[in-house]
Parts: sequence; C-alpha cells; structure tokens
Amino acid sequence: MTVRVAVAGASGYAGGEVLRLLLGHPEVEIGALTGGSNAGQVLGALQPHLVPLAGRVLQETTAEVLAGHDVVFLALPHGQSAAVAEQLGDDVLVVDMGADFRLKNPADWERFYGSPHAGTWPYGLPELPGGRAALAGTKRIAVPGCYPTAVSLALAPACAAALVEPEAVIVAASGTSGAGKSPKPHLLGSEVMGSMSPYGVGGVHRHTPEMIQNLSAAAGEPVSVSFTPTLAPMPRGILATCTAKAGPGVTAAEVRAAYEKAYADEPFVHLLPEGQWPATAAVFGSNAVHLQVALDEAAGRVIVISAIDNLTKGTAGGAVQSMNIALGLPEATGLSTIGVAP
Amino acid sequence: MTVRVAVAGASGYAGGEVLRLLLGHPEVEIGALTGGSNAGQVLGALQPHLVPLAGRVLQETTAEVLAGHDVVFLALPHGQSAAVAEQLGDDVLVVDMGADFRLKNPADWERFYGSPHAGTWPYGLPELPGGRAALAGTKRIAVPGCYPTAVSLALAPACAAALVEPEAVIVAASGTSGAGKSPKPHLLGSEVMGSMSPYGVGGVHRHTPEMIQNLSAAAGEPVSVSFTPTLAPMPRGILATCTAKAGPGVTAAEVRAAYEKAYADEPFVHLLPEGQWPATAAVFGSNAVHLQVALDEAAGRVIVISAIDNLTKGTAGGAVQSMNIALGLPEATGLSTIGVAP
Amino acid sequence: MTVRVAVAGASGYAGGEVLRLLLGHPEVEIGALTGGSNAGQVLGALQPHLVPLAGRVLQETTAEVLAGHDVVFLALPHGQSAAVAEQLGDDVLVVDMGADFRLKNPADWERFYGSPHAGTWPYGLPELPGGRAALAGTKRIAVPGCYPTAVSLALAPACAAALVEPEAVIVAASGTSGAGKSPKPHLLGSEVMGSMSPYGVGGVHRHTPEMIQNLSAAAGEPVSVSFTPTLAPMPRGILATCTAKAGPGVTAAEVRAAYEKAYADEPFVHLLPEGQWPATAAVFGSNAVHLQVALDEAAGRVIVISAIDNLTKGTAGGAVQSMNIALGLPEATGLSTIGVAP
Amino acid sequence: MTVRVAVAGASGYAGGEVLRLLLGHPEVEIGALTGGSNAGQVLGALQPHLVPLAGRVLQETTAEVLAGHDVVFLALPHGQSAAVAEQLGDDVLVVDMGADFRLKNPADWERFYGSPHAGTWPYGLPELPGGRAALAGTKRIAVPGCYPTAVSLALAPACAAALVEPEAVIVAASGTSGAGKSPKPHLLGSEVMGSMSPYGVGGVHRHTPEMIQNLSAAAGEPVSVSFTPTLAPMPRGILATCTAKAGPGVTAAEVRAAYEKAYADEPFVHLLPEGQWPATAAVFGSNAVHLQVALDEAAGRVIVISAIDNLTKGTAGGAVQSMNIALGLPEATGLSTIGVAP
Repeated sequence: MTVRVAVAGASGYAGGEVLRLLLGHPEVEIGALTGGSNAGQVLGALQPHLVPLAGRVLQETTAEVLAGHDVVFLALPHGQSAAVAEQLGDDVLVVDMGADFRLKNPADWERFYGSPHAGTWPYGLPELPGGRAALAGTKRIAVPGCYPTAVSLALAPACAAALVEPEAVIVAASGTSGAGKSPKPHLLGSEVMGSMSPYGVGGVHRHTPEMIQNLSAAAGEPVSVSFTPTLAPMPRGILATCTAKAGPGVTAAEVRAAYEKAYADEPFVHLLPEGQWPATAAVFGSNAVHLQVALDEAAGRVIVISAIDNLTKGTAGGAVQSMNIALGLPEATGLSTIGVAP
Repeated sequence: MTVRVAVAGASGYAGGEVLRLLLGHPEVEIGALTGGSNAGQVLGALQPHLVPLAGRVLQETTAEVLAGHDVVFLALPHGQSAAVAEQLGDDVLVVDMGADFRLKNPADWERFYGSPHAGTWPYGLPELPGGRAALAGTKRIAVPGCYPTAVSLALAPACAAALVEPEAVIVAASGTSGAGKSPKPHLLGSEVMGSMSPYGVGGVHRHTPEMIQNLSAAAGEPVSVSFTPTLAPMPRGILATCTAKAGPGVTAAEVRAAYEKAYADEPFVHLLPEGQWPATAAVFGSNAVHLQVALDEAAGRVIVISAIDNLTKGTAGGAVQSMNIALGLPEATGLSTIGVAP
Repeated sequence: MTVRVAVAGASGYAGGEVLRLLLGHPEVEIGALTGGSNAGQVLGALQPHLVPLAGRVLQETTAEVLAGHDVVFLALPHGQSAAVAEQLGDDVLVVDMGADFRLKNPADWERFYGSPHAGTWPYGLPELPGGRAALAGTKRIAVPGCYPTAVSLALAPACAAALVEPEAVIVAASGTSGAGKSPKPHLLGSEVMGSMSPYGVGGVHRHTPEMIQNLSAAAGEPVSVSFTPTLAPMPRGILATCTAKAGPGVTAAEVRAAYEKAYADEPFVHLLPEGQWPATAAVFGSNAVHLQVALDEAAGRVIVISAIDNLTKGTAGGAVQSMNIALGLPEATGLSTIGVAP
Repeated sequence: MTVRVAVAGASGYAGGEVLRLLLGHPEVEIGALTGGSNAGQVLGALQPHLVPLAGRVLQETTAEVLAGHDVVFLALPHGQSAAVAEQLGDDVLVVDMGADFRLKNPADWERFYGSPHAGTWPYGLPELPGGRAALAGTKRIAVPGCYPTAVSLALAPACAAALVEPEAVIVAASGTSGAGKSPKPHLLGSEVMGSMSPYGVGGVHRHTPEMIQNLSAAAGEPVSVSFTPTLAPMPRGILATCTAKAGPGVTAAEVRAAYEKAYADEPFVHLLPEGQWPATAAVFGSNAVHLQVALDEAAGRVIVISAIDNLTKGTAGGAVQSMNIALGLPEATGLSTIGVAP
C-alpha cells in the first residue's frame, strides 16, 4: 500500500513535525507541500532538519495543488481549514491539525474562537472510550489540541470510574513551540529562556471547552475545568498536573488499578512504575504519553500527571496515529514510543 | 551603624546569594565565612561571581569562628542549625535560612523531617499579618521556605478576606537552584534542560505544612493544601499558580480590591496592572514579588499567580529584609525591586 | 551632584539595561524616556522588571522631549543617532550606544554599514591605552560594540606587548539579547533553545573593523582579524575565545605577566587565578570582565578567553562607566563587579 | 539477518543513545545490557525514554554476560575497554565507543591519557579517505571522539586538496551530554543554564591528538591544531568553527567545489546551500553532519563550520554506521538524516 500525502502549511511547526514523521512512515509517499507567505521558497531554508526534503519548493495552498492525494494534512491557522476541506473530495482523507472541527457545541466554538462554527469531525484521540471506532474508515479527522490530549488522557480514567468529583483543577506547562512560529516579542528566546509565565488564565484558554467536552463524556456528567497554561523555557513538551477531589473512600490502590486497566493495551500510553514521575525530556520527539497517579489523603485529592511531546503525540503524532486507524493500517506504523533524551 | 556579619555555609546557593546581597548593603561588613567540606578553599573558586570576596578562605563552621559578629546567617543543611545556634549568644542575631525553626507544630516537623523538633523562631515573612511586629528586635529569625513565600503571599489576602473556601490547590514551578548545589544525577544540566518534571507529589513535599500554617493563620480556620512542585529548566525563579474555590457571590472586583488593599504599602509586593501576568524573568535577582489575580466564573475559582526569585525573596533577600527589621534598619536597605532581565 | 538623564529608545534591551543601572546610580535622576513605535505605552508593559518606573509613559524621540537633561543616552537603531545628537546642545553629554560614531575610517563605515559616515566620537573603553584621557570632560561618547569590548580587552595587552603576531583568530558566543528585541523567526525561543549557530561568518560582521581598529592601535601596526560570532542558547553573555600566533620565544609566564600588569589597577577587569576559566554566568548583570590566558606550546598560539555580560559591560554598563568619567564622578559609581549567579 | 547485540555500559548517555538507535534497527535484536554501579536496576529507572526496554535488568559487565552475541558495544569509561575486549572472541564484532583504540601513536596516548597504550583498531569514520575500506569485515572498531568527528569532517577536504596551510585553529561548543552522566558540580543545570565556559584550553584536551592524526593523514603532512572546547547550555550538539590560513590564490569557489566533490555521495554529510549556516538544532537526534564554508579574503582564512549531534553522529550513530559497514549491511540502516526540531 502506498499512501500519497500532501501537507498544507508545511513551513510551520505542526507541518514540519508531520513531515518528520511521514518521512519515516513506510507506507507514505510525500506529495505536495504548501505554504502561506512562504510559498515559492525551498523547504530546506525553512525546515533545515528535514534534509531529504530540502530541495522541495512550497506551493500555494489551493485545491488544485492539494488534489490527487489520498491524504491531506491541514496545518493552517485556526478558521482556515473549512474552506480548504470543502474543496477536497469526500474520498480524500482530510486530517485537520487546527481547532476548527474539534468542538461539538457551536456556542462553545463561537464564544472561544469568535467565528461561526464550521462543524464537527471524528475526534482523533483513539485512547478515549469509543475513540477508535469513531476513526475507523473515516474521511475526516479533527486532531485534538495539545493540552486536551495531555489532560484528557490523564483524567478520563478517573472520571470514567467515578473516582473523582466532577471538578478538575489543571495547571500545565508547555514548551514554546506550542505557540507557533510567527515571531512575537514575548516568544523571543531572550524573553523565554530562564522564565516561566502563565497566559490565558481564568478560564479563557481555547482548549478549555475541549477538555470539558472530553472529560464530561468520560464521566457521563458535566465536569467543570479550571485550566491554567504556562509557558516553559523549553522548545517542546507538555507537563500537565491534573487534580480533582477524590470520591468518598477512594483508595490509592483503586486509583492505580483504574489506570492500569484503562491503558493496559494502549501502545502509546505508559503508566510509570510507582515512585517514578514523568518528565517531558523522556517523551521528546516520541508519540508516548507518560503518566503517574497519586492520592493526597490529607488534601483529599487525586493527582494525575502526564507528559507528552506537544508536537508529536500532542499534534502530528496523534494525527498520524489517527490516519493509520482511518486507513486500516497498524496503528503504530511510523510512530515510536522512544524519546530522544537527554 | 556597621553590622558585622558572618555566613555559615558560604559555598552553597543560599550562602552565595546572601553574600551577593550583603556586598551591596551599606551598613554591613562581611566577617567570617564558613563551609562544610569546602573549608580551606578560597571563595573565588566556588562562587566566581563574588569578585570582591574572591580571595577569602572558607573556615570550619564552629562557634569560635562565628563568634564576635552582630549577625550570623545560617545556610546549612536541614537539621544542623540548632546545634550551631545554641552556641551563639542571645545577643547575636541568628538568621536561619534552613527549615529547622519554621514550624510551630512539632508533629508536623517530625512527620515531614523525621527528626525531633528544635523549636520555633519568629517567622521572616513581614508581609503576612503581624509579620513585622514579630520580627522587630528579635534575635532569632526563621526564614521561610521559597515555595511558602510565593504561595503564602499569593493566597493569604484571599484567605484573610474570606473570599475563598479553605481548600487550596497549588502547582508551582521552580528553577533548579532550589534543589541546591550538591551534584545529583537528576539535577545535571543534560537532564533538566528542555524538561519539566514534578517531584514530591501527593502532599509529601516538606513545604506543605508551612503553607498550611501560614494560610490557616490568615484564614482563621484550617486550610487544606494540595501542593505539587515541579522542576523547570531555569536556574532561578518560582512561578506559583494558586487556586481555591471562590466563596458564594464573590466578584472579580472584590478579589482585586482585597489584594490592592493588602499590598498597597508593601515595598516588595507588586500587584500587576490588570491584563499583565507575572514572569519569573522580571524578578530575577530581585526581592520583588509579582502578583496577578483572576476569577474563573465558569469554574468558580479564584486564581492567584505569583513570581519570585527563589534565592532572593524566596531565601536570602527575605532573610536580609527580616534582618533589617530586626535591627531597626530601613526595611529595604540593600534590597531591590528591579530584576535583571532579559 | 544630581545628574538629570534621558534615555532615547527605552523599550529595547540596551535602553532597559541602562535604566536598570541608572536606577541604582546615586547621582542620577531619570528624566524623559522615549520609544519608537512604543511611544505612548507605559514602561511597565514593556520592561516589567523595572518596577520603580512601571508607570512612566514613553514619549516620542524628539529634540524637545530630550532637551533639558544633563545626559542623554541614545539606544537607537544604527544610523539614527546623528540626526538626534545634532539637535542636542554641545553642553549636553550624549552617550551613543549605537554604532554610528565608533569607527574612525569612513570607508570602513560605508563598507560595513552601507551609509555615509556620521563622524567619530571619543570611544568609551577606558581600559584601553589612553582610554580614560579621551573621555575626561567629553560631551560625546561612542559606546563600543559588545563583541569589540570582549575581544579588545582580551587581546590588547598581548598586542601592545608584542607577544603575538598581528593576526588574530576569534570565535565568540553571544546570548540572544545581543540581537535585540525586534521579533524575527530565527530568534524565537523555539529556535534558539538547545541550539548553537554561527552568523556573519567570513569577515562580514559589522564589529570586525572596530576590533581591527582597537587591536591595531594597541599593536602599533595593522592587525588582521578573523572573527566568527555564534548565537548561544542563553539570554545574556559573551564568551570570546581569542587566539593569535605566539611571538618567537614567548613564554606562558610572560603572557600572564603582561595581563597582570595591564589590568592590575582596573576595577572591572578580573584576571582569574591560574587554572580557573571564565564563565558567562559569573558576570551576569555585572560590569565585570573575567579573563584567562594560556599558551599552547605545541600549536604555538596564545589563547585569551574573556567573559562579559553583553548588555552590561558590553553596552549599558560600559556606557555608564564612561559617563562617570566624562562627568568627573568616581568611575565605578552605580556599577558592580558582582554577577547574579547561578 | 538478525544481529544479536549486547551493550556494556547501558546506563550512560552513549549507551542509552546506541540503544535508542538499535531499537529502530530492523536487523538487530537487543541482548544483554550491563551497567557498572547500576547493575541490578531496571533500565526504565535510568533511561526512561527507552520505553520498550523499561523492564530490562542491567547485569554486571562480565565476559560471561557479554558472550553469545554477534556484536558488543562498549560504552565504558576510558581505559576499561581493553580488558573486556580481549575476553571476547575474535569472531565477535566489538565496537568501542571509548577512546582506548583511537590513537596510532602510543606516545600521544600516554601523554594525554596517562596510561599504557592498548593498541589501535580500525577507525570508525567512513567519510574520511579510505575510511570504508578499513571497516569492511573488521571485528574491531574504534569509534571516533565527538569533537574529532565534527572537526575532521569539516577540515579534511580542505587539507586533502591543499587549500589551506597546515595550521588549524578550532573553537567548538558542545552540549553537556558530552561530559557524561556522572554528577559533578560544574555540570549541574543551575551552573550550565545561561552560561558558556571553556575547558581544556591550551592544547590539553584529549581529542587534540586525534584531530591531528586525522587532519595530518588527510593533508599528507603534519597539521598543527589549536583546539578550544567550550561547554554550551544545551543537552546535545556540537558546533565546530574550524579555520585555517588559505593557501596562496585560493578562491571561495575552489573551496566550495572541494567540499561538493568530497561529500557528493555521502549519505550523512550535508553541505548546506550558500548563505545558509549550520545550527545544532537541525541535527538533533540525527546522524547528519551539516557543513558550510567561507573564505574571509581580508583575513586570508578559510572557515568551515560543522554541526553534529555529539551523541548520534558523534558517538552512537557513528558506531552503528560503522557496524553496518563491518557487517555488510546497507550503511544507513537504522540511521536517519532527519533532526528533531524545533
């Protein structure tokens, strides 16, 4: 099987990462690459790490350029995917790494993104209950946000097993690549090195409704989420500290058992041995999720901590994993659980 | 007035930072410097940034060496301060930058530190209610822990004004200097650069009872604390994200007003203008505390975020500030609110 | 004595650093602050570390705004200083932190900067032979470039003592603040963290003719310079590795003696004890220069390594030092040799 | 073909990296793993990024444990390889990632390593003239040092084509993993983050004679080397700035042509397009070498800059590449030119 793939938005971080993974995917042939303002440039000048594609020229993002591929990955700014997608045939697998088709509730979309809702596509997080079934054979995939990936995998088992009350408090640290490649003063190396800072505080971050959607589905009841993202001085990685009040009488052993059961057969989710805690360095460049759980008996809270690479499992790796399922390929094809460390 | 000062433990990070500040203190003359295994070495080989003291030789930490000073700063491993302090006269101001005399409840000490409780000294956080009165004229000061400094200043006003319920959930990121200068594999640059990781999860970090002590005093009732510390890839700084459930009907304006009132006259606590969030880089090397508050109405929680330099306001700067109060000097002598950025 | 000072370009890194230092200068009162596109904003939003000036509003950079001060610091883009300076009276001390007035040879200026030469002002590197005499009482100061500061202080003694042949090979690493605060893709944190890269290779960096000018003056003959700058993953600091072929029969002791003699009375230049090498962390935020020398007998080369803070001694600290000399103040007023480390 | 491989020293950085690569090598089956003081521990606690091997227990490094494999990688401290190697049969391919068998001249070994010379094995740098022939079918491989890899590939073509005089001046920056995983105070994250510092200055670094050996062989005459290594605040990567005086009349076009010719068919050496400079981030985790050349006509020097990942091409990737050649496998099997960036 040879799958011919195009990538729209190949000059950004998500586009570069999906190309890095696709170059190692044995069933994929890389076709058209498009860019926005970078159209006309060679990829080697923009993504020097992708040596085998160094001479490729970026084209304009048009339906003509993207036509004739089996799969099209969209790595476009929020709000631009719908217009492109509707020009691609129903027989093309379209994988949107933007936010446009993640939310089910149009009111949530409009409140957090300020534009009309484009629709809802099958959600690319196979490890959630029912996740794989929704993706099998689909021709449209909404890749989850990076924070919702880390947070949903951390808390869904506790919610599903009713081990916690439906009020989550989450603080997550992300590497700067999560903020994209557009140059802004606060993202300069001079500003971020040696500094931690929060942003989107007070329930205003756009990934909040997506977390609520996932955790409420797992819990079978509405879950409230207090989410605070922080920017960390590292290029990649998310460390999500997720806590919720423990249900009455819940024990540490029950919590651990729920996670062992939930992820026993998952190829990418790795519950660490007791006493060992996740570190983002260990998942750098990999599709792995490292998890650890604790029960703070004095405070009466369950704490679950997850580490992912925001660009791999959090974006492009999750996208390739979902593509594999949609195409009927072995789910882990072209993906790895092995981080590049130190 | 010339205050003659000795520093026990001058080769570590806390000792080096207090020397850096004391070198700029107009009323201080630096006397004996002692080290543990480094006794006999010149300070320049261990603290090359302290050029004016480069030729000073570290002595053994003995009562004889420390005698004859007006003030003795102890920057010793936990559990070693009491034995030294009791050999120093009652007329000497002893400032302990270790944990030994911070906790009031011996049971807390024994549970978290595993040794007999040495006692309780006046607590060096002047910005807490009653803080200055406890320090005026004292001859013994227990310098707060770095996390308790960041967290207590962030949450005490909300607790004191009964704007939140007495259950705090806190996640904080610290630079690596908080872990000290003893070489351990997980603190190697190769391990920490590019990585975020938690430690002391589940209520077991030693600073937890100190936070509970401070916040309960502010609230006038027991406050439970869920505290998760994380190690961030930066040498200095603490960013503490502190949240608690908002009391019924509490508004954002009320929250902000409480903080404006609490810190209106504080020289070192800086409530940022609305819309601006703290970053640890802005307080690097300074004694400032940057604060911002938010009310997440959907989640029903108050979020307060503080940034400090763990070595300055979090340890040595707080120590000098308390020394100034104890000696009757202007509180800000030798201290600055100006960070070294970028 | 109270010196009233204005800073043009207060929103950038050089402007911010000179304000940080001036806030601690006992003879200075800070007057007008101007910005380019940031005029109208409060400084606190742009330089959050400068708490005492947080409420100051940036004004337009005009002669009217800058009038009425004793000293005006210009922290403007290259080529803009001359037009501002000529509108300021001859009785005002103008300190240009840009490149406009550093070079003596108009042809060098035109070749490297591509515009007509504006002139030559007294050069603000007091530690060079004759440096202080040129600055005493002057009303115009050209602050050296950051790399030329590090390199000239490293090699001038060897050149002056004819210990080396007049061909220098220099490789220097700079923190990213040297590239300024204008957001550009290659300066994003995501790009620079974890990466070393060169730029301006092959003799094209604009600081090259300035180094040649300084070293040739010291040597009394033309010195050729091969200079390669690299960008290092740190916010501040320059480490300059400077080498030249040793003259016939030169010994290591002679080399060391030349440096001991050259800098014996210098307050800011610190020749480290034998066996200890400079590190940029040790001079972070200080005006100190740390130096060490070696003779590689097998290769027949002298190696001198210097570490400075590019924003302090390399720009704003050097500027304040020269201002002090020009005004007849003690040279070290408001400046420190103590770095903020770790 | 299934190659059964053992790794001695699996808990360190070189051992971890070779395992990371071998896990992706389609012809390799990973056998025994040994450790020094870590014997008895599970690999997951020491190398958490190697998820597929998390449960493997480290054994003692003995001949019995290492017996029965086709290939044994030695990632041991300098001086320990010979004793192990001589107990392994002549039919086993032994790949030494330490220094023991790199140098041909016993006097060089004794002077730089202070112990008797163990011998000389075929040298694992296939891109050098004659490099592949020396490795085909061999049962013993001496993997080059990381700096000699970066430097030799940068300068050998210029030396071989007699475009430069035989005196090289080299300054290189390395990530901290090059210093290994043994905890030492100067390698703490607190010390290295935000800091550049040199070490081994003046011709005393142990990699110097290896560079001289390689460059002299390429030049056909003795080449002197002035080499200064620096420690950079990043976990991985080497950026080597290599310069030499240009021969009379040499042009930039000639220099470029020599490199294009030398590396036209090399799978891992990538001469960048003119105007683009290497950055270590682009080769992170890959076996690629990025190169660029310049001629500084004013200074009369050729500058060649190379970027490699010190752990991959600089150690473990080079080791696997040489193993492939020795075993008759396609040279690039299990290796990639694609970096993990940003």
